[in-house]
Amino acid sequence: MSRPTNRQWLLAKRPDGMVGRHNFDFHEAEAPEPGPGEVLVKTLYLAFEPAMRGWMEDRESYIPPVGVGEVMRGGIVGQVVESNASERPVGSFVQCMTGWQEYAVIPAAQATPVPEGTPLTWPLGVLGITGLTAYFGMLDIGKPTEGDTVVVSGAAGATGSVAAQIARIHGCRVIGIAGGPEKCGWLTGKARLDAAIDYKSEDVAARLAELCPKGLNVYFDNVGGEILEAALDHLAIGARVVLCGGISGYNEKEPQPGPRNLMNLVIQRSRMEGLIVLDYASRFGEGVSRLAKWVADGEIAHQEDIQEGFENAPETFQRLFTGKNLGKQLLHVADPE
Amino acid sequence: MSRPTNRQWLLAKRPDGMVGRHNFDFHEAEAPEPGPGEVLVKTLYLAFEPAMRGWMEDRESYIPPVGVGEVMRGGIVGQVVESNASERPVGSFVQCMTGWQEYAVIPAAQATPVPEGTPLTWPLGVLGITGLTAYFGMLDIGKPTEGDTVVVSGAAGATGSVAAQIARIHGCRVIGIAGGPEKCGWLTGKARLDAAIDYKSEDVAARLAELCPKGLNVYFDNVGGEILEAALDHLAIGARVVLCGGISGYNEKEPQPGPRNLMNLVIQRSRMEGLIVLDYASRFGEGVSRLAKWVADGEIAHQEDIQEGFENAPETFQRLFTGKNLGKQLLHVADPE
Repeated sequence: MSRPTNRQWLLAKRPDGMVGRHNFDFHEAEAPEPGPGEVLVKTLYLAFEPAMRGWMEDRESYIPPVGVGEVMRGGIVGQVVESNASERPVGSFVQCMTGWQEYAVIPAAQATPVPEGTPLTWPLGVLGITGLTAYFGMLDIGKPTEGDTVVVSGAAGATGSVAAQIARIHGCRVIGIAGGPEKCGWLTGKARLDAAIDYKSEDVAARLAELCPKGLNVYFDNVGGEILEAALDHLAIGARVVLCGGISGYNEKEPQPGPRNLMNLVIQRSRMEGLIVLDYASRFGEGVSRLAKWVADGEIAHQEDIQEGFENAPETFQRLFTGKNLGKQLLHVADPE
Repeated sequence: MSRPTNRQWLLAKRPDGMVGRHNFDFHEAEAPEPGPGEVLVKTLYLAFEPAMRGWMEDRESYIPPVGVGEVMRGGIVGQVVESNASERPVGSFVQCMTGWQEYAVIPAAQATPVPEGTPLTWPLGVLGITGLTAYFGMLDIGKPTEGDTVVVSGAAGATGSVAAQIARIHGCRVIGIAGGPEKCGWLTGKARLDAAIDYKSEDVAARLAELCPKGLNVYFDNVGGEILEAALDHLAIGARVVLCGGISGYNEKEPQPGPRNLMNLVIQRSRMEGLIVLDYASRFGEGVSRLAKWVADGEIAHQEDIQEGFENAPETFQRLFTGKNLGKQLLHVADPE
């Protein structure tokens, strides 16, 4: 019996500047066959995160780089279409890290079931790594307390939007920074933040001065660069800066200078701390169940930006860096069988 | 009866670039007379700290700036020469913040007695704000544990040298960074550190790579700038960066760019935190008594750089920024009566 064709995007060239189609090779192979204890997963949705840009570079990090010629790494939700593992029967929906390809064989244990009743895309976003990063970053590092002023950059993004709303749920005054009126409108509308700053049309430093007269207690940073510097100019005493990402610099050819005002961490006795969500794996259950309840209760609004067609994976990825995505960036690849 | 002449250094001009004599006015006045509950203190030693450079600037900070035309602020040790407060009799030695002048009247409560048997200069250095900054910065923020690799910049300075030795006392492998063979020799000799890096003649990044193959667990930063960036390139997972000061930038006309590699705080899940020692005032007793014991036991070596003559206060202050001082920078103004 002939095997299905497996379209793949391979890493062709490490990035130097803005990532795009030129960094990837389109490849067709035959879908592999599962061995004992393995399943063949058909990809339904691909998920994209800014951190994936870092995985393409040849440098030591918290996980090894993707090798040139290898399938681009990434999270997916798929359906088991062939199974040699009774615990993951054909037809079941799973989440895994099989990357930018239409089919993959993996050990059943590496295919996490999508819980019954959960929309297929949510484990890639609000109930996945994205939402969990917001959850642990905001609560464990940001430690928001009632009455705090909390500022979130990249606030209309998948992680930022959840982080901001978690702070709101904890009784904080929350200001989101995002690019463009549509994103800012969503922040003060559906996400019910107290204020939004449009970094594309407003002076972020001036607006922070106006909105945070007593300084900010928590700054959750997804962008780095000038916005980080502006936030550091408005720290309250004892502020916590959560470093989640620095998307403004990811596609620069050279590392960009850091903020000129780090001494404000001394003057304001403040802390800046980075997180990698994988360190919290033992508490993912706690995080997912609380996030799911907040979503069910209407406390957390979330949005997904779903593009179409496996052939568009590189362009869909690039949307993260051009700020086009509204919420979690996904690519719809196939429908369930 | 005629009053003694009180020579003073007033802040004349806020600094723009390297601080020096041009920022101060020499002034002569009559020593004031103490009122009820007050004492007249005669200055014996002036103490200098890099942070004083910040007090000269007209900007909000953890304490108000020194006003133009006011006596330059600073810590001193002196002797009570006139007293209207029985608890601070004439002849007693006290520590206070009366600044760059030969005489000052203060309420007795603001004149802290120098403990019996303590050398007069120690409350200005190893047993004062300087040593306490090292103590709380290293222990409360750096949290060194046995076997950690600890790196300290400005390690031959008054605070850095104490911080480094506290880490050594706690069973850490300690590497000090300082300028010149004399300072580095003192670090591996009298201070018994494991290694020293001479930033004036060695490639700090290369030496850190060699000396910290598993990364550094604690970095105690007194200097900022390029050395901070080099240290951030060698963080172990979960590292703590103690921001104590950034002397490399204090005399720059414009704020200097920060490190290009702040994202290493994310990749290595590390923390950077600043401190102002005044926040620990309620625990100063604990700190002084432990420091005093370590000094008495020979566990902490410390050195003082004592210059001569009140007229040399501006030049003595400048020694901190040209790296000339070996240990705590003091100025001997007068002998006890």
